[in-house]
Amino acid sequence: MSLTNRQILLASRPVGKATVDNFRLVETLVPAPADLAPGQVLVRHHYLSLDPYMRMRMNDARSYAPPQALGAVMVGGTAGEVVASRHPNHAVGDRVVGGGGWQEYAVVDGPALAMLRKVDTSKVPLSAYLGAVGMPGVTAWVGLSMIVAPKAGETVVVSAASGAVGSAVGQLAKARGCRVVGIAGGPDKCAYVVDRLGFDACIDHRQHRDAASLSAALKQVAPGGVDGNFENVGGLVLDAVMANMNDFGRIALCGMISGYNDEPIPLAQPRLILTARLKLQGFIVSEHMNLWPQALQELAQRVASGQLQYRETIAQGLQAAPAAFLGMLEGRNFGKQLVKLV
Amino acid sequence: MSLTNRQILLASRPVGKATVDNFRLVETLVPAPADLAPGQVLVRHHYLSLDPYMRMRMNDARSYAPPQALGAVMVGGTAGEVVASRHPNHAVGDRVVGGGGWQEYAVVDGPALAMLRKVDTSKVPLSAYLGAVGMPGVTAWVGLSMIVAPKAGETVVVSAASGAVGSAVGQLAKARGCRVVGIAGGPDKCAYVVDRLGFDACIDHRQHRDAASLSAALKQVAPGGVDGNFENVGGLVLDAVMANMNDFGRIALCGMISGYNDEPIPLAQPRLILTARLKLQGFIVSEHMNLWPQALQELAQRVASGQLQYRETIAQGLQAAPAAFLGMLEGRNFGKQLVKLV
Repeated sequence: MSLTNRQILLASRPVGKATVDNFRLVETLVPAPADLAPGQVLVRHHYLSLDPYMRMRMNDARSYAPPQALGAVMVGGTAGEVVASRHPNHAVGDRVVGGGGWQEYAVVDGPALAMLRKVDTSKVPLSAYLGAVGMPGVTAWVGLSMIVAPKAGETVVVSAASGAVGSAVGQLAKARGCRVVGIAGGPDKCAYVVDRLGFDACIDHRQHRDAASLSAALKQVAPGGVDGNFENVGGLVLDAVMANMNDFGRIALCGMISGYNDEPIPLAQPRLILTARLKLQGFIVSEHMNLWPQALQELAQRVASGQLQYRETIAQGLQAAPAAFLGMLEGRNFGKQLVKLV
Repeated sequence: MSLTNRQILLASRPVGKATVDNFRLVETLVPAPADLAPGQVLVRHHYLSLDPYMRMRMNDARSYAPPQALGAVMVGGTAGEVVASRHPNHAVGDRVVGGGGWQEYAVVDGPALAMLRKVDTSKVPLSAYLGAVGMPGVTAWVGLSMIVAPKAGETVVVSAASGAVGSAVGQLAKARGCRVVGIAGGPDKCAYVVDRLGFDACIDHRQHRDAASLSAALKQVAPGGVDGNFENVGGLVLDAVMANMNDFGRIALCGMISGYNDEPIPLAQPRLILTARLKLQGFIVSEHMNLWPQALQELAQRVASGQLQYRETIAQGLQAAPAAFLGMLEGRNFGKQLVKLV
């Protein structure tokens, strides 16, 4: 008996804003366990991770990764269980995370096996390995440690503060003795960031139409200026933060979700980089694999002990993935956006 | 008998473009040697250095240094000789460089004495201590070594390539085994940069009305992309270079002369910092005093041996300083802009 595998393909590249018509749901067959080739592993996905970087990969533009191929399964992180294995390192029943893409099952072999990692779900829930103890958490850890490198007592600003990356950045910065200001969209997210995550302050960017207004609000909650910025949004948010940066400030550029629809988003005052001797650096977490073990160890320990809080928005069923993804790009999620498949 | 000291003061702050009316020439008296207080040194200036940073200091805006005070002598580097001294470390006849400002004589005491440095003019001409073996040369050395940090075989782009800083950047990068492309204003400067300074190529930015055109020209002479950029100009020049940067490229932001008249100069594509994982860092040479001795040693040795070429544009007499300064801001100088006072 063969199982059906539902998959979501990239059907067309967005022109401006992405829509559900850019995706197509198809059905294929999953190979029977007896039909696996030696070295192959069959994984059933429990959770699919939806992340902002995917929007950039839908464009046919230069970026750090080649564009997502048209007609191919959308790429993405997944968490699930091994349901059949012809590989000595993977046993049926193992809980695993990997890059299985937007589908219910994946046959993993070749180089992709290197990304398939067995995880311990006794103290950390499986889904957290796609969030706080996965790529988003490590992204937070790497950008904060490597670029922002804050000292105790410094002020760090994080945009998209209630998101999977931003919430980890802020809590890690607090653990390092910093004053932390979040920027998030809406009063509920701001309340969560302060009351639950323990940030010192949070600004609702929806209350501000331009960078000058947001900058003035930031000055009120960070009167001593900003020493470090972990930037996930770009555009007017980055402009406002830059206007408040102290001399020798560091900006880790992790994402520019404000510009993922390909509209131009200039930086208003690059002269500040000169006059305040700022460092502005882009990074991609997958290029710093040497830091992952140390990062994952701290993140897992903090999640297990309850010191690192996170929140998830979970869509049900593969067919819900496109709408959930588009909603996330507009900030309708709250915390880590997942799709539950099982 | 007292000597007359002519001085140029900042009379008013520019509104937009600076003009000669922003300056005022005044005469004062120089103290007689017998009237010097203990610890004071009287220096007669032979050369006054004119540098782009002075334009930024004329504005009453946040920058790395406090604004130039209204009604005070314009700040600036000077080279001259000690004509009277009541300080044990300084003898009459010493050739010295310092920060004496836009005037013919300076009484140096207090903290300013720390900047007064005796120089050896047996192998390096006095004026070169204001250029290739002075602040501009060290600026080139520090930004190149500390931020661009090029490896042999990499491609480095330098704007304002025939200027005091740019010409040193390019020659030092060539000495480190790089391919070097200059950007300069006009065919004469470009020919000089390639034929005399030994750059691999030079682009005349005056032939290009927009960043796209300049970027295409750059791609022709640097088909393998750009790994390092020493940026003196900003604006469309920086936009064009950024569009050609390879992954993990480094940009040392040394100056943005294109925006010194206070008009906004946005950065067109900050997203490239993310997608190409660029590092963009501003720096000020005076904040890296620990690097000066090593830099000056290499620069002096290269000038003395003829390996480091430079060119000077010399205006005659203090009264010529304002017009020479304004001309430099528009690129009418060729190499280091000096004013000869003796």
